[in-house]
Parts: sequence; C-alpha cells; structure tokens
Amino acid sequence: MRQSRLFAKTNKDAKQLASINATLLQKAGFIDQTMSGVYTFLPLGLRVLNKIENIIRQEMDTLGAELLMPSIAPNEIWEQTGRLGSLDVLFKVSGANPTSTAQNDTEYVLNPTHEEVITPLAKKFHYSYKDLPFAVYQIQTKFRNEPRPKSGLLRCREFRMKDLYSFHTSEQDLQNYYEQVKRAYHTIFERLGLGKDTLVVLASGGDFTSGFSHEFQTTCETGEDIVLYAASADLAFNREIAPCRCPDAYPAEQLKPREEIKGEGVVGVEALAKFLGIPVSKTTKTMLFETETGVVVAGVVRGDYEINLLKLKKLVGCQALTLASSQTVKRVTGAEPGYAGPLHLPSEVLVYYDDALRGRANFECGSNRTHFHSINVNFGRDLPEPTAYVDIKIARAGDYYPQTSEVYQVLQASEVGNIFPLNVKFSNAFGYTYTDQDGAAKPVFMGSYGIGSSRVMGVLVEKFHDERGIIWPVPVAPFTVHLLSLGEQFSRPAEDLQQRLSDAGIDVLWDDRPDVSAGEKFADADLIGIPVRLVISARTKGKIEYKNRSVHESQLVTEQELLGLLKVLKGE
Amino acid sequence: MRQSRLFAKTNKDAKQLASINATLLQKAGFIDQTMSGVYTFLPLGLRVLNKIENIIRQEMDTLGAELLMPSIAPNEIWEQTGRLGSLDVLFKVSGANPTSTAQNDTEYVLNPTHEEVITPLAKKFHYSYKDLPFAVYQIQTKFRNEPRPKSGLLRCREFRMKDLYSFHTSEQDLQNYYEQVKRAYHTIFERLGLGKDTLVVLASGGDFTSGFSHEFQTTCETGEDIVLYAASADLAFNREIAPCRCPDAYPAEQLKPREEIKGEGVVGVEALAKFLGIPVSKTTKTMLFETETGVVVAGVVRGDYEINLLKLKKLVGCQALTLASSQTVKRVTGAEPGYAGPLHLPSEVLVYYDDALRGRANFECGSNRTHFHSINVNFGRDLPEPTAYVDIKIARAGDYYPQTSEVYQVLQASEVGNIFPLNVKFSNAFGYTYTDQDGAAKPVFMGSYGIGSSRVMGVLVEKFHDERGIIWPVPVAPFTVHLLSLGEQFSRPAEDLQQRLSDAGIDVLWDDRPDVSAGEKFADADLIGIPVRLVISARTKGKIEYKNRSVHESQLVTEQELLGLLKVLKGE
Repeated sequence: MRQSRLFAKTNKDAKQLASINATLLQKAGFIDQTMSGVYTFLPLGLRVLNKIENIIRQEMDTLGAELLMPSIAPNEIWEQTGRLGSLDVLFKVSGANPTSTAQNDTEYVLNPTHEEVITPLAKKFHYSYKDLPFAVYQIQTKFRNEPRPKSGLLRCREFRMKDLYSFHTSEQDLQNYYEQVKRAYHTIFERLGLGKDTLVVLASGGDFTSGFSHEFQTTCETGEDIVLYAASADLAFNREIAPCRCPDAYPAEQLKPREEIKGEGVVGVEALAKFLGIPVSKTTKTMLFETETGVVVAGVVRGDYEINLLKLKKLVGCQALTLASSQTVKRVTGAEPGYAGPLHLPSEVLVYYDDALRGRANFECGSNRTHFHSINVNFGRDLPEPTAYVDIKIARAGDYYPQTSEVYQVLQASEVGNIFPLNVKFSNAFGYTYTDQDGAAKPVFMGSYGIGSSRVMGVLVEKFHDERGIIWPVPVAPFTVHLLSLGEQFSRPAEDLQQRLSDAGIDVLWDDRPDVSAGEKFADADLIGIPVRLVISARTKGKIEYKNRSVHESQLVTEQELLGLLKVLKGE
Repeated sequence: MRQSRLFAKTNKDAKQLASINATLLQKAGFIDQTMSGVYTFLPLGLRVLNKIENIIRQEMDTLGAELLMPSIAPNEIWEQTGRLGSLDVLFKVSGANPTSTAQNDTEYVLNPTHEEVITPLAKKFHYSYKDLPFAVYQIQTKFRNEPRPKSGLLRCREFRMKDLYSFHTSEQDLQNYYEQVKRAYHTIFERLGLGKDTLVVLASGGDFTSGFSHEFQTTCETGEDIVLYAASADLAFNREIAPCRCPDAYPAEQLKPREEIKGEGVVGVEALAKFLGIPVSKTTKTMLFETETGVVVAGVVRGDYEINLLKLKKLVGCQALTLASSQTVKRVTGAEPGYAGPLHLPSEVLVYYDDALRGRANFECGSNRTHFHSINVNFGRDLPEPTAYVDIKIARAGDYYPQTSEVYQVLQASEVGNIFPLNVKFSNAFGYTYTDQDGAAKPVFMGSYGIGSSRVMGVLVEKFHDERGIIWPVPVAPFTVHLLSLGEQFSRPAEDLQQRLSDAGIDVLWDDRPDVSAGEKFADADLIGIPVRLVISARTKGKIEYKNRSVHESQLVTEQELLGLLKVLKGE
C-alpha cells in the first residue's frame, strides 16, 4: 500500500493524551479521538485491530461457532436479570428529538455484554442433553458508560470485544471446558506477543460462584488493576480479592490507662494519628454495614488498611452489604457517624476483627460517643479478646501471601481477558433448562469468556515502544515491511519491489511521498513502528538497506537475502 | 463444518414473519429476531453477511482506504449540521439508570450515517490541494429509529452498511470519481448475483445539488420503493422525483354554468366525486404551502393525483416548503381548511397548475368558502387560463415519461445502494476548506456512497427462493457444498470427503447429525439453500450423488468428476 493513500498522516505535534498508547497511536496515525473514550480506527489502526481479532478468531473457531448479536436490545431482557436498573455502566437508546420519538418512543439497552441476549437465544435451540454442550462467540463493538475514560484504548465508552458463551449439562462439564478456554487464551496472548507478560489472575466470582473467576492480566505501568503475585506458589490475585497478612509484629507493651480524648472534626487516620500523637498503625477503622435482611455488621481493621467488602461479604454470607445509614449508626453506637468503635456495641451487631489487629496493645478506636476517640484500648481488658481474627482488609504492598508467608510482588496490570463461570445465574433468570436423559428439566450451566481486542491494541503499545515510537510485534503489525524510497528516481524500483514482495505474501507499506525529506521518512517509520524498514536510495547502490525496528544497526542486502530474512522474521 | 456444531437449528414451524426474507432466513437458521427490526446473525447468516461484505470490500479497496468510525458521537457535531433536532431516524444514547447517569450524564448520538464524523476528521489531515482527492470507507453497524420495521432485513433499526466518503478540489473532480464509484457498484451487484435486476435510478439530490443522486434499486416484490422505468430512454426514476405526464386526453365539452354546491364534511376525492355525481378526474386538489420566508404557494393538481412536494419546491426555488397553517389558509381563502380552490385567490399567493389540468372543461374545485365546492369551473371563463402548466404531481401507473411519451414500467424495488454528490454542504457546515495552488481557501467537494450489506442479504432471499427454501448464488452462499451422510456407516467416508474438499479450497457443511432421517436432511438442505447438495449413502454405491439446488435432477459422480463440476460452478 502507498503511504500517500493512507488517509491519516503522522502528527508528531499531536497533543499529549493521558496515556502512552493514546498519544503514540494518535501521533502515528492509528487512531483519532472522536471524544473522550471514543476513537476512530484509522486505516493503519484498523489493520492492527483486524490482525488481533483474526488471531483471536482462529483460536475461538476451535471452541465454538461465530455469530453476531445486535448492539441494541429490548429493556425486558435486562429487566429479567435485574440489571436494567442497577448496572452502573449501562447505556440506553431512545429517539434523539421530538420528530424521532413521535415515530417510535420505545427505549432500548445498548449492550455492554450479551448474557441477556444469548441466554434466551440458546434456549430456543438447545433443549435436550443431546444438544449440549455448546459454545458460541462474537467479535463486536460494545458500549459502557465509563465515568472518566482516560487511558486511551485501555478504557473506552465504545470498544471492541470478543465474547464467548458456553452451555453445559453440569458444573463439571463447564469446568472442563473452562480449562480448555484457559489454554486457548494462553495461545492467543502468546501469538499476540503478550505471552510472557500475561498472568492468569484469580478474581472475584461475583454472584455466580463461591469460587473464583480468572482474569488475564498483562503487566503494564498504565494498567488500572493491581495484581499481587506470590512467586513460590505461582499464584496471582487481583487486589480486590487477594488474601493477605500484615507483615508487622507488635512488640510487647505495658498496658496504659484507657482515655477518652475529645477530637471534633478530625478527618482521616493520618490527621487523627497526628492529633493524638500516636502512629497510624495504632489507629483503628470501624465501619458499619447492613445486609439485605437488615443485620448490622461491623468491620474492624487497622487504621492504615481499607476494608475489603468482597471478603467481608463472603464471611458474612449475605447477598448484599451496604454502608449502614447514619440512622442505624446512631442507633447502635449512640453517636454521630465517624466515631464508631468496637467498645460496648450492642449484641445485635456482628463484629469482624481483621487479623492485623492481633497482638496490638494500647490502640485507638472510636468511642461510640460523638467527637470522642478512645486511646490505649486493649483486648482482654477493655473489651473481650476476639474469638477469631479474619482477613477483611485490602492487601497493600509489603503484605504476605498467607499460605507461603512470602511478600507479594505488586504489579500494575491491564485486564486483557477474563473467563467467568456463570453457573446457573442466567439460566435461572430466563428459565433455561434442558431435558436430561431421565426426562427431568435441569438448569443449564453457563460460562462467559471475554477478550478486549481494542484494549489489547492499547496494551501492545504500552508494552512495545521506545522514545521514537511504537515497536509492533510481527503478528499484529499493520504491515510487515515499511519500504522507503528516497529520491524520485527510486520510486519505480520501489514500486516494483513492493509488487514482488506482495506477490511473495508480504504486507508492504511503501512510503512513496515525493515531497518528504529522508529524515522525516525515517522519523515516521520509527513512529509507526513496522517491524522491518527497507530503504532504496542512492546510498544503497542497487542493494536494499534492511533494518529491524527494534535494533539500531542496518545492513545492505540483496533481494534474495531480503526474502530469506523476512522468512525467518515471519517464523516460516 | 459439522452441521451439529452450527448452534442454530432449522425450524420449519417458525412463525411467518411479514416478509419472505425474514421468514425463510429464520426458518433456515440464518437469523433470529431479537425484537422488531433487530436481528442476530446466527453462524450461517454471519457467513453470508461476511461473504457479501468481503465482495464489497474488495471493490472498495480500489477506491479508498478502509477505516472504522465509532457508533456514538458527541451531540455537538450533529448540532453543527442542524440534524440533531431534525433528523427523524436519529437515536440518542444516555445513562440507562440513576447509577449510570450519576457516573456520566452526557448524551450522545448513535450514528445512522457518518458525514458528521468524517468531515471534521478529514479536515484534520487534508488541508492542501496536494492532499486531495481522497476517499475512505467503512463497513459497520448503523442505527435508525424506524417507525415500523416490518420487511425483515430490508428495513431495520440496526443494520450493516458500507459507507464511502470522497473529498475533492472541484465539482468536476467529484463527478469523475462519482462515475468511477458507479462502475464499481455495478461490479459489486454483478458479483453478488443481483446485476441483471439492479437498476441505477435517479433520485432526489436533497439539499446538496440541483441535480440528482443515484440509487441502486433491485427489483423485488417486497421492496419499499417504486421505480418508474422508461425503456426506450433506458432511464429509471424513483417515483418521488419521476417527471410524468398524464395519459388522458379530454374530449371537447360544452361549457356548463358554474355552480356552488354545499357539501359539508365530504372527505376525500372519491367521496366528493360521488357526492357531486362527477368522475374523480373532474375534481381538483388545491393545497396551500408556505416557504421559509412566509410566501404562500398554492399547488393545484387533478383530484386523483397527489402533489409532489420535491417537484413543487424545486419550481418555487425555496429551501423549505411546509403545509400552510390553518390561520394562513383562512387568511388567503377566507374559508376553513378543506375548501381551498384557485378561484379568487389573492395575488400574494403563487399558484402552480399541474399539466394534467390542461384542456379540462367543467371541473370541480374548492370554493374558498367553508362547506362549498364549485362545479363546472372553466379556465378562461371563471378564472384566467394559466400562463404555464407545470409537472407537480406524483407519477402514477399509466403515466408517460415526457421526453419519449412512453408509458413508464412501474417496478417495486429495494434500494441496495445509493451514491450522493454532497458537494459543499458538509464542508461548509464544518468550515472544511483546502488551500489551493493560488493560496486561496476553497471549500472541499464531497460525495457519499452507501451499500446496505445486511439489506442485500434480505434482497437476495427475496429474489432467490422457491417453495422449499432459499437458493443462494454461489459467491454469497454460506457454504458451497452441503454434504449429507445417510447412515452411521457413511459418517467416516463423509468426514474424509469433507476434509479432501476443504483441502481443495471448497467450503463444506457436513450434515453429520446421527438421529435425523434422510427426509429431514433433504428438506433442511433445500431450506438452507446451499448451491450443491452431495449425498453419500447405501444407494450411492461408492459414488457421490450430486445435485444443484436450483435443478431437480441429481447424478451419481466419482470424486474426480465432482471436483471438475465444482470448478465449473465456482467459475474457475
């Protein structure tokens, strides 16, 4: 392809966006930001996206059949799962003006995911144990009402995604298939050039399973997730669920007399510690929650930790756990919110103590009295020693993995894929059962498996770039070869070479621009990041200059040698 | 591919939908209706859609570069062209629930077309005469708030479309490119199997040009457009703009005395003619309009014709022409709406007489007096003979093409493509100019060119089916060969044959279902409509039964003969 016909141009002066991927992809002419979190894929960018999606497609074809579901869906199916009113990223679609609503005033959902569409659809076709297991996937545009999209292609309001759904007669069959998908995902990320930097990470199973779901997280400085990796166990956890132990040991101390200190409007543990003249690790955070049945739960953690709601909810064994209303706080503590502590709480409150509290002496906690904080509080004296300590904190750098007592490696990462055992959550919502061999109607077990193909494109740029531009891995590069002809007299030989390379099955971008200096062509080639740069000019004396984007040195080669090098490059 | 892994099943009992294409595509398992005007493309359907889109893509690649613009767009760009508040099919996107709008309460447009996105985007890159001409296209999902979608894939709220946009320094350059696109479209519809049934039809140029736009209309009984074809001129017109002459000659008549007849609340010309005891062709329809500057215009046509607003607007030379308010009607006629006529209208009203009125004697018209109709009205006696008769009627079956005086052929058709000279409409809206050689800023001339790829799929089924099912043309068939193995012992030979055919580059769907009768397999094959049906069974005695979907006879062939037949079929 001729570079002059690429539509988009490089723009080295394009504004810096909040992320490396958005900035470089925009400067190099791969994407254009239509608005926050919404991008056009320009010709170069679409080529990369297509290559990524075709690699995904090839591996998915071994797992299921491809279809294409619609982007808009009737509200009813989203009502049926209860997500219409609750899903925070859900967009709706309706007439844009009075003329339009006069024609049709129905409102629709703009799908961010397709469980609500695929479940009733599968139900139409697969009603007997003979029809199962089954799996189907699509590669499609999705929409999410993100609050503040700011990481380029890593988080968008409109993005591309592959989503696979599977249907099974049993949890065991689902699990077997789930492992098969896991292997296919490894192959995909390997082929995309992200294999060694992509970890399988345990994450929350949501409402669907008491076990975990699995995320494929690629380490990436601008990633929005934090992964905790325990090397000797070879286990990685999303921080949102990582089990952890605090590394601190508390020295023995003489118990001091308990005091109540008036500290009105002291906000935050740092300020409180300073105000009281104690280390932050001596402060205590007590938060009150209510379950869906109105049971009041107190979570107590060391002041410098945050309470992990997912962990607490799992321990309580409830469906929902929300912050207690100030009315409830006042009722059970007798004080305004902000002064809760474990002292003298009524027995109706279920109290959970985090294990980082064990062995601490002379600590601070709220007095359950407005404006007052108790200091030099001690278990066994001021309140009973807890019968159990549990892990209800969000893990921090320095924390241990409890099983091996090793300090976690803390990694910034971007979630490029996830696999999720939905079990019977959606089958139940839609009454999707199958008839088993014994004639009984049984719920279908489902799994759901995503890969964000446009996000992968952003992650690739975050991983593979230098100060001069992008460095695409060969399998996803927009072209394999960037051919630069310098000087009008080399246009014809370059065009001929392009043709011969194309005939040999090699993608070539030919920089045919007549009015552009050699320096600018070189800079553009580095910015665009095609794996191989070829130059034909007066200085190459009938040969071809060959340079790999990722190395500094170039070499003069014959066309025969060139074809050999390209064969090696493509792994043929 | 194994039929047992197709996900969807045929369903001969599926409900009859309002169109042949929706019914057959649903019964045969190509699409599933998610809701009115919105469909899932099931694996078989997606294969057809991909084949259609790839044919389009191959031809488009000769005309421009492919990109992918987003589906959601900021309101501002749609405000800038004034279409946000006026386009009747426009959808908007916003948070679906309070949690979502709390995150982000911005509203967006869900693009039904992309002039508003591509114009400011092109402006970023192409600012000099050296950068032009240019063209870019995408194949993408579009959204339209259709009032009553009921023709299956022919009219959808969500559909697939290819849209190409071109940019030029002059109207002449645009025109040259426009003709090039026209030729590429002919090639595409030829390749899709629709060549001989697809006409280039002149249609309205909208606000963009005083000339025409061009529609590619495929004749189709369920099509929503009416095309008038003048064979000897080889010209086709969309009825909305077709020039026409009424075929009737009026015999000479003795002039009768004019009378005013009271006829309160007689609605419609049929009822009026009956009430007055005259033929409908003696009635007259007088409609009053107002231009954007408040000029009142009367259009007068024979009672059995409708006024063609596009024609009238063009003659008046105004920007907008809307039905006069009842206030205006009362002011200029002195009567309630419904009794307007050309008699005694004040001189401020511009009156246009349709040419079907010429030579008519003793006709009826409104009296400009509430409840009264005048009969036996005559030009030259009751009001002056019009200085000019013009064509302001909507053409009817039986009308002539004025240039050749031949009666139009009236064809029902579906618009599969359109090409549109936008000229400077959008460049002006976005201030998109280029710097010419002389240094002056000049507006960029644009063209826009669409093909509805999912609609093409529907049209193909409307055209190619029989009472047993679909008959796909080879280039767009989901598979080239449908292989049926009858009996368990033929599974292995069938699987082997499938493999050898695949190796030879032939798409095969293998009906491997074990528990399905031969009759059902044959019926399904006819319903699905793959071009070639092959059977291996006890009755084929080591050979293969070969049958073309469109013929009744089958033949027994060897594998060698089969490969020869398939080569011929694929035109190799």
